[in-house]
Amino acid sequence: MDYQGFFKDALDDLREQGNYRIFAELERHCGAFPKATSRGANSAGENALDDVTIWCSNDYLGMGQNPKVLAAMHAALDRCGAGSGGTRNISGTTHDHVLLEAELADLHGKESALLFTSGYVSNWAALGTIAGRIPGCVVLSDALNHASMIEGIRHSKAERMVWKHNDLEDLEAKLAALPLDCPKLIAFESVYSMDGDIAPIAQICDLADKYNAMTYLDEVHAVGLYGPRGGGIAERDGLMDRLTVIEGTLGKAYGVVGGYIAASDELCDFVRSFASGFIFTTALPPAIAAGAAASVRHLKQSTVERDMQKSNVAKVRAKLEQVGIPHVTNASHIIPVMVGDPVKCKFISDVLLKDYGVYIQPINYPTVPKGTERLRITPSPVHSDRDIDHLITALGELWEQCRLARQPIAAQ
Amino acid sequence: MDYQGFFKDALDDLREQGNYRIFAELERHCGAFPKATSRGANSAGENALDDVTIWCSNDYLGMGQNPKVLAAMHAALDRCGAGSGGTRNISGTTHDHVLLEAELADLHGKESALLFTSGYVSNWAALGTIAGRIPGCVVLSDALNHASMIEGIRHSKAERMVWKHNDLEDLEAKLAALPLDCPKLIAFESVYSMDGDIAPIAQICDLADKYNAMTYLDEVHAVGLYGPRGGGIAERDGLMDRLTVIEGTLGKAYGVVGGYIAASDELCDFVRSFASGFIFTTALPPAIAAGAAASVRHLKQSTVERDMQKSNVAKVRAKLEQVGIPHVTNASHIIPVMVGDPVKCKFISDVLLKDYGVYIQPINYPTVPKGTERLRITPSPVHSDRDIDHLITALGELWEQCRLARQPIAAQ
Repeated sequence: MDYQGFFKDALDDLREQGNYRIFAELERHCGAFPKATSRGANSAGENALDDVTIWCSNDYLGMGQNPKVLAAMHAALDRCGAGSGGTRNISGTTHDHVLLEAELADLHGKESALLFTSGYVSNWAALGTIAGRIPGCVVLSDALNHASMIEGIRHSKAERMVWKHNDLEDLEAKLAALPLDCPKLIAFESVYSMDGDIAPIAQICDLADKYNAMTYLDEVHAVGLYGPRGGGIAERDGLMDRLTVIEGTLGKAYGVVGGYIAASDELCDFVRSFASGFIFTTALPPAIAAGAAASVRHLKQSTVERDMQKSNVAKVRAKLEQVGIPHVTNASHIIPVMVGDPVKCKFISDVLLKDYGVYIQPINYPTVPKGTERLRITPSPVHSDRDIDHLITALGELWEQCRLARQPIAAQ
Repeated sequence: MDYQGFFKDALDDLREQGNYRIFAELERHCGAFPKATSRGANSAGENALDDVTIWCSNDYLGMGQNPKVLAAMHAALDRCGAGSGGTRNISGTTHDHVLLEAELADLHGKESALLFTSGYVSNWAALGTIAGRIPGCVVLSDALNHASMIEGIRHSKAERMVWKHNDLEDLEAKLAALPLDCPKLIAFESVYSMDGDIAPIAQICDLADKYNAMTYLDEVHAVGLYGPRGGGIAERDGLMDRLTVIEGTLGKAYGVVGGYIAASDELCDFVRSFASGFIFTTALPPAIAAGAAASVRHLKQSTVERDMQKSNVAKVRAKLEQVGIPHVTNASHIIPVMVGDPVKCKFISDVLLKDYGVYIQPINYPTVPKGTERLRITPSPVHSDRDIDHLITALGELWEQCRLARQPIAAQ
């Protein structure tokens, strides 16, 4: 076996398919985000562009540069040092972790919350442990669930039934086919990252009640952004108490890093006690926990970031429609501009960066299905009207230059 | 199905077995580590102890309070903000990530390195991807491999053959039983965390050569600590070029958080391109990457931390032997004091903290097998002679009080 040859061939295949990924190397300008320096093709800084505007960040509200968040992190660094020094069980639990978990439990109106090193790990570990440890548990998984949920369900070795995306009839048919006393877990998201559509949470909870199922809701693209205190779509719709588990992230709207679940005392304690991915890993640094807690606290009180974001999302949508750039209509803050070809998608992204200083990463397979390659635009409260006008001009000129299809101007 | 009842019963079982874990809530005093505040039984701070000495941290060298590390983190926070704002592919790669990966590749004499959100995720994602994507790959896994490696191998769905811990004969028998052209990966650690023993790396590499196997070495308890530049046991023994993959952590001796692999360009690029746990997760914050890079850089040059640690480990061992406290002899910096009972182990730990201000977490199942419960002591360069004397006095008095067995004073 020629191992090196195997790796090389697999990479060559990716390149041929147009799916080989090159990471853009950026330096965000703290205080001036969404502005950043792009280091271009190499890290030596040749072809560096100093004034790039990021249009595809998941730091949806610009909280990564919020002064309260940064002050909390600086203070915790000075107080406790860099790392936590151990797992949560062996010297790694600090007061900052405990405070953050209390803040998150309160955010979602749950008894407890449990922190993980990332949102990915929280889904993988929590779903793997809940579904894996309840004998005979069946997981009913939305067809478009995130990779981390799919891996968690797979890890559980529980039986999995995939229901059609956001399709209540299909979900009910599958629930009804199972014995009422069979343990069941319905796993789904509120805002789906790549299409920006939103699940019918209330109706899913109705079905869960009817068929005695637990519910596991991933709100990573919603926490901080929706609801009067940033508790997500479930908070906005008054549904938090109906969900068994709400999972969220501290790395998107909250601007830091880390993941969590919020649920009953017993459920969180159960995952805490049995999840390998929680137990056997170094705890997040106290400064990360302190920064995240400051961000969650701030967005419980302040709505100006959410209001500005909504306004900017509406502006970008309206202007895209004026110039006929095809994009997916949805009820969230995510604007997918469809291209449908990995090579074109990458080309457009390259020219946007090089000629216009607009950074939008092409989203290709495996993040989205082949044939649905797209530019995923995430307007934030820190994008200015000038940024928006420049984005639209750039896209318009590129659509012209590449002779890409326009969509008819939508009726408003 | 009564879900809450199920969770509650499982937790009650843990309590009955003495395996229910209560996390110590600490605040490390930056600049005065290993000193910390312990918040006692509740986070309101009742029964708080202000002057606890941590004796079980994995911040082995005290790098979590190194001024260069903290300065790098403060500077990156001010320059780039709190989080990275996206996955490595979608706006989350910063110059700090690229610099850290170069620093790590250089540390291990490899072409490339690849960062993950944790050491756990690096093992899970890299082993899962390498073994899972090579058709017919068989993983030969040391019996005492860490949970993250076991989960990675399980995730790969590759055939797994478990060889007896550090047993070359058993490993060779298993290798010889496989066809020479069958793809093979030998997965093992250098320093085993809980017993502190060290693998015969050179001989394992000899077997890998003989049977055309790849080697995957976890050095998480060795990087920063061994070798002239902190490259681990493989560096100390001049073996780095013989290993296919070296995996390490930034959360132990380097004092921050995060994990990585170092290997050939093609192997790292392969994992980068295919590993779900790398692709679909938010990148580490730039400040974390900057702090870790500063720590790695510092320990490439400075040996004073390693020398002081070795000296303190020797002092603690010698004094334990003087008073006859039973501990495992090994060639590493980890000193396991065996108790062999979860309830006693927890009791001793509680009294050490409450009456002596000495924090050593009891290590119970599932971290170690039942019946091998222990106190795992990790002397560091920042423990003083007074700290050491106090530790030995405390353990001696407790051994007397609990009428625990002494071991004969060892011949020196």
